[in-house]
Amino acid sequence: MKSVEFQLDSRLQRDSEWVGLLDLCQIRLIFDRRYPWFVLIPQIDGACEIHHLTEEQQRQLWDESRRLAQAMETAFEPDKMNVAALGNVVSQLHVHHIARYTDDEQWPAPVWGRGEMVPYTAEEKKAQIGKLLAALQSTE
Amino acid sequence: MKSVEFQLDSRLQRDSEWVGLLDLCQIRLIFDRRYPWFVLIPQIDGACEIHHLTEEQQRQLWDESRRLAQAMETAFEPDKMNVAALGNVVSQLHVHHIARYTDDEQWPAPVWGRGEMVPYTAEEKKAQIGKLLAALQSTE
Repeated sequence: MKSVEFQLDSRLQRDSEWVGLLDLCQIRLIFDRRYPWFVLIPQIDGACEIHHLTEEQQRQLWDESRRLAQAMETAFEPDKMNVAALGNVVSQLHVHHIARYTDDEQWPAPVWGRGEMVPYTAEEKKAQIGKLLAALQSTE
Repeated sequence: MKSVEFQLDSRLQRDSEWVGLLDLCQIRLIFDRRYPWFVLIPQIDGACEIHHLTEEQQRQLWDESRRLAQAMETAFEPDKMNVAALGNVVSQLHVHHIARYTDDEQWPAPVWGRGEMVPYTAEEKKAQIGKLLAALQSTE
């Protein structure tokens, strides 16, 4: 029932697409083909800070983060994973998981607010989501 | 014994000061008075990615992250906590915990690679570490 009541932030809605739902979090793909970039969003109304969640929710969030990072490593073979909870612009709690490459556009800088987001085509988006979901099925 | 064998990255050594040791991680203060900024560094040689740690190490890391974030909230009353594992420049695993304010120098941008780090005086550094340690004692 919680998933029905949960209201996604309008900017996250605009900049990302639904990939799937784990026990606690939505996974969404960020619309920027420069990097394989997914966010985990705990479906908890009003959540902004990880350390304000219950300890059980925090354990669940980080377990889902581990699963997502492992799946991204399998699917996209990055040189480095960037995992971050910032929330300075969009306060609704969301945890970035970004696959970085030593030859990507902004390496070694962080990705936020640098350069212009490059949209996917519909086919690319579908392919990117498909790769992640396939890899996710093999994690536990 | 592990703490004796562990070799801290030379750049982390240069840019930060020892604050204390939790069960898994060193806490260090980053030398930038623009923000209360601490890093957690698991004392595990060769660790680069969180999801490569054992599940027990990951649980311990995130529990120590929760304690540090709670203590920083108590000590520094930020508007937002930024928690991030990037590692694009220094690959040795370290997790940033940065207290952000809506009137700080870079808000709402992330802090990395923006503007110049502003050093603490010796007195300020001691005071900052003291505030954190006092708050940390009241977390579990």
